[in-house]
Amino acid sequence: MFLLNGEHRHCVDVSDRGFQYGDGLFETVEVLQGKPLFFDRHLIRLAEGCRRLRIPMPDTALLDREARQLCESSERAVLKLMVTRGSGGRGYRQPEQIVPTRLFSLHPYPDYPLQFQTDGIAARFCEQRLSLNPSLAGIKHMNRLEQILARAEWQDDSIQEGLMLDTQDRVVEGTMSNLFIVKSGSLYTPPLGQCGVAGIVRQLVMEFAQRIKLPLFEQAIDQTAVLHADELFVSNSVIGIWPIKRLEAQVFNVGVITRRLQDLLNTARMAEV
Amino acid sequence: MFLLNGEHRHCVDVSDRGFQYGDGLFETVEVLQGKPLFFDRHLIRLAEGCRRLRIPMPDTALLDREARQLCESSERAVLKLMVTRGSGGRGYRQPEQIVPTRLFSLHPYPDYPLQFQTDGIAARFCEQRLSLNPSLAGIKHMNRLEQILARAEWQDDSIQEGLMLDTQDRVVEGTMSNLFIVKSGSLYTPPLGQCGVAGIVRQLVMEFAQRIKLPLFEQAIDQTAVLHADELFVSNSVIGIWPIKRLEAQVFNVGVITRRLQDLLNTARMAEV
Repeated sequence: MFLLNGEHRHCVDVSDRGFQYGDGLFETVEVLQGKPLFFDRHLIRLAEGCRRLRIPMPDTALLDREARQLCESSERAVLKLMVTRGSGGRGYRQPEQIVPTRLFSLHPYPDYPLQFQTDGIAARFCEQRLSLNPSLAGIKHMNRLEQILARAEWQDDSIQEGLMLDTQDRVVEGTMSNLFIVKSGSLYTPPLGQCGVAGIVRQLVMEFAQRIKLPLFEQAIDQTAVLHADELFVSNSVIGIWPIKRLEAQVFNVGVITRRLQDLLNTARMAEV
Repeated sequence: MFLLNGEHRHCVDVSDRGFQYGDGLFETVEVLQGKPLFFDRHLIRLAEGCRRLRIPMPDTALLDREARQLCESSERAVLKLMVTRGSGGRGYRQPEQIVPTRLFSLHPYPDYPLQFQTDGIAARFCEQRLSLNPSLAGIKHMNRLEQILARAEWQDDSIQEGLMLDTQDRVVEGTMSNLFIVKSGSLYTPPLGQCGVAGIVRQLVMEFAQRIKLPLFEQAIDQTAVLHADELFVSNSVIGIWPIKRLEAQVFNVGVITRRLQDLLNTARMAEV
């Protein structure tokens, strides 16, 4: 199911700069009981991305209306929203009047085994690095070749996620998720000022930590620190929180802090429906 | 005029990974007297990009046939060829069977004043940096937000190109061109092993230099070296060679080495038609 600029179409003009250059942004939203969860937060992040890329943000009331229209009959699904700079301009030069393209698409919720959440997943370190570029850091833009190359490194279905380092050997995030570690009762997550995507669930987890007075540090983390963590987990809007039970040869328990944060996230999700 | 997977269509499915993530490559080719110039070289570069991104290259005889079909009635034009990983896969994970999308599009040749070639252009240094990523360096992939952000820095029509530095302060190339400088009778161009696009005309210029025994050095160049050059020029398949007559506050003559290389390029272009 698709809504392309308000119409039920799923074919975009090849001149769209989203196709030509990845000139745009996207949001991936969990849909539960007909509601797009945390949609206001997703729109705020989209607005920040539009500000950074200087793409005029489509009207939020319109986005809200179209989202809810698409989602209302879905018990569980994934809603994707893409906003591009539209067509026009010459080469990389943008058009003087930007008419953004907006596309909503609804997808089946992936059939992940429940064990991923309860027992944890297996992960690996990727060879492909995240390059450093403050202009593009944090926002969910459409230039995703680094993630594609990283994900292409393994076909083994027993590994669910790959952790990516930046070009200065700092562990940053997963190919499709953010990363947290717990050490000696404190929570750590890498800063995303030079690369990475600032996830909605990451934001929620950081707020939960403050709420429950769990010491939280946004600081650079290296591979050694990750492998010596007491607990570690990845997060995104579709998976929620997945504990990591194995990373390369290292095994981890699903710890109490991870469980607490999963509970807080589930409570927050239920409050949205 | 468009040929999308061999059909006269210009609308691509929104599930195409070229649209979703910029997962693909492109070539921009000068068309003169019905011929796509240096097309073999463009296909070789495309093949290398496909190898690096692990996209199956469409059959070259097919690409050649479709290109010539599109171009044959054009006195002067620009032919663009895009190859994406097509649709499929889950998220960043690619499909097991990749069916690439190929798109040819024909565009009017831009109405650049002849003076750009004869007298030179004005250029500036960009703030936006090129990030370092060997996996993506050199190839003409579709993730072009860095170039878009760089080009967005100026609207002044009296400036034709912006030169970009990498995140380690090396001057690398223009937003849409490669860069050469001449100093004390030698030719210098930045290496492109960490960022940048390895242009076809850049390749030709380097071959001309060897042919005429002009000393050629592929080495890192900083802003000071650029500003103190005897001559400097930018190159791409559409503009050929444009001398730079002004860069920020610094002015330059159009030098004899630049002229010589322009002549050699024109001779090579004529040999193609």
